[in-house]
Amino acid sequence: MFDCIIIGTGAAGVSAALTLKARGKNFALLGSRQLSHKISAAEKINNYPGLPAVDGEQLKAAFLSSLNSAGIQITPAQVTGVYDMGDHFGVLCGSDSYEAKTVILATGVEAVKTIPGELEFLGRGVSYCATCDGMLYRGKKIVVVCTSKEMEDEVEYLASLAGEVVFVPLYKGTEIKGQNVRCINDMPQSIEGGLRVERVVFKNETVSCDGVFMLKGAIAPSALVPGLKAEEGYVVVDRACRTNLSGLFAAGDCTGRPHQYAKAVGEGNVAAHSVCDYLAGKK
Amino acid sequence: MFDCIIIGTGAAGVSAALTLKARGKNFALLGSRQLSHKISAAEKINNYPGLPAVDGEQLKAAFLSSLNSAGIQITPAQVTGVYDMGDHFGVLCGSDSYEAKTVILATGVEAVKTIPGELEFLGRGVSYCATCDGMLYRGKKIVVVCTSKEMEDEVEYLASLAGEVVFVPLYKGTEIKGQNVRCINDMPQSIEGGLRVERVVFKNETVSCDGVFMLKGAIAPSALVPGLKAEEGYVVVDRACRTNLSGLFAAGDCTGRPHQYAKAVGEGNVAAHSVCDYLAGKK
Repeated sequence: MFDCIIIGTGAAGVSAALTLKARGKNFALLGSRQLSHKISAAEKINNYPGLPAVDGEQLKAAFLSSLNSAGIQITPAQVTGVYDMGDHFGVLCGSDSYEAKTVILATGVEAVKTIPGELEFLGRGVSYCATCDGMLYRGKKIVVVCTSKEMEDEVEYLASLAGEVVFVPLYKGTEIKGQNVRCINDMPQSIEGGLRVERVVFKNETVSCDGVFMLKGAIAPSALVPGLKAEEGYVVVDRACRTNLSGLFAAGDCTGRPHQYAKAVGEGNVAAHSVCDYLAGKK
Repeated sequence: MFDCIIIGTGAAGVSAALTLKARGKNFALLGSRQLSHKISAAEKINNYPGLPAVDGEQLKAAFLSSLNSAGIQITPAQVTGVYDMGDHFGVLCGSDSYEAKTVILATGVEAVKTIPGELEFLGRGVSYCATCDGMLYRGKKIVVVCTSKEMEDEVEYLASLAGEVVFVPLYKGTEIKGQNVRCINDMPQSIEGGLRVERVVFKNETVSCDGVFMLKGAIAPSALVPGLKAEEGYVVVDRACRTNLSGLFAAGDCTGRPHQYAKAVGEGNVAAHSVCDYLAGKK
């Protein structure tokens, strides 16, 4: 069992990992080897102390070099659920699962709001993870909502499995094409159905389907962790980055504004120290 | 009048300044062009994201290059008092004074505890500032307590004015010498007197004197700002770095543990955003 699992490889996750490493803890850092598309997409960052006037790619390279220098590996994974098991946590990533004494949520925020019906049908036809659930829709009809061009490889993967794909990019300039792919350039109004998803409603049409994939950079924390206290979409934390669940901490954009690298880095550090305090108290 | 005065040039002050600059605010950054002796004295820093395995001098150089790149000047000053004037703040630095709509305290912490009597006699024989008050003790007998070798130039300045100096270095390896300087290698137990300071008590002797200089890297925030709420020596702040005084914010080590660069940088950023929010609400 890990001392801690850090969920997310943005600025907060990287900072938490560096501090847990310095404190000799046994942890996993789950996320993407590309860190976060919000980091690399930044045009110019003038207020991260110590790295004057860097762009997103330079900041990403600097963060990666910190991880490398400390000997920290990233475990590529899309977390689909975090479960409080009383004295530890279970972290699900599709069919993989991990156990840890503590968890740091550093999942960021997604600018896109949840669609009515999205959370209601999560696990009943709505999925956040192409890799985890794609096989369930072999030959079927799915709607794929995608918030960023950087996740188009997942759309292509789904199109290779599904019978019919209605693709809904929430950005401009997509290049997804395919015999079985139809594109709708509109924001879904709601996801509807009975026991399971049956249709997605748009302004000008309603699309019947077997499933809906919501491909987002970040998942709403309340969707990820049952029982987690959130307000206006943000995880509620105290100054030590503690959530309402004992042993579960949160840091970075997912705890609220300002959405800034410096703030995220600071909270990652604080959360890691709180993990150490928590583990020390447990002994 | 400034939009904001930032007091302190450690990691929190530097971070706050970069963000206020990015937001186009009119501010002064008061402190030392050497930043903070705690930054430069660090041996090895492995957990500040983006600058792998730097030592203190490298981190200091990186922070200075961020300030230079943003065109931010440091105003060398030792703040001796911050006064809430209702709709603005007065910031005293010896005989100089500044006015600002808001203040960010980023004063750090001093490992050395306050000595019994120190706060009681502040302004009545106890001074934190050689430059401000040295002239008052021309030809007189003073006790000079110094917490860091880097402030020995202030001790020498005081020795050039005073008739007799009892020098109390709270560190090893001092090189202060002089006809009128006697050294005591012991921690003062208390500062005593009547209306004004009369003596300093040590374990093995009691030294009568006209004044006491406490040369420290950081001054206790509650000594600096009348009415400021503090607990166990730390400024009490909420998650937005707001103190109990409207318009006064605090960031970095002075708000509590962990005493870490990343945490300080994060809070400096948050405090600067709170200043912007506060100024926007004022308009």
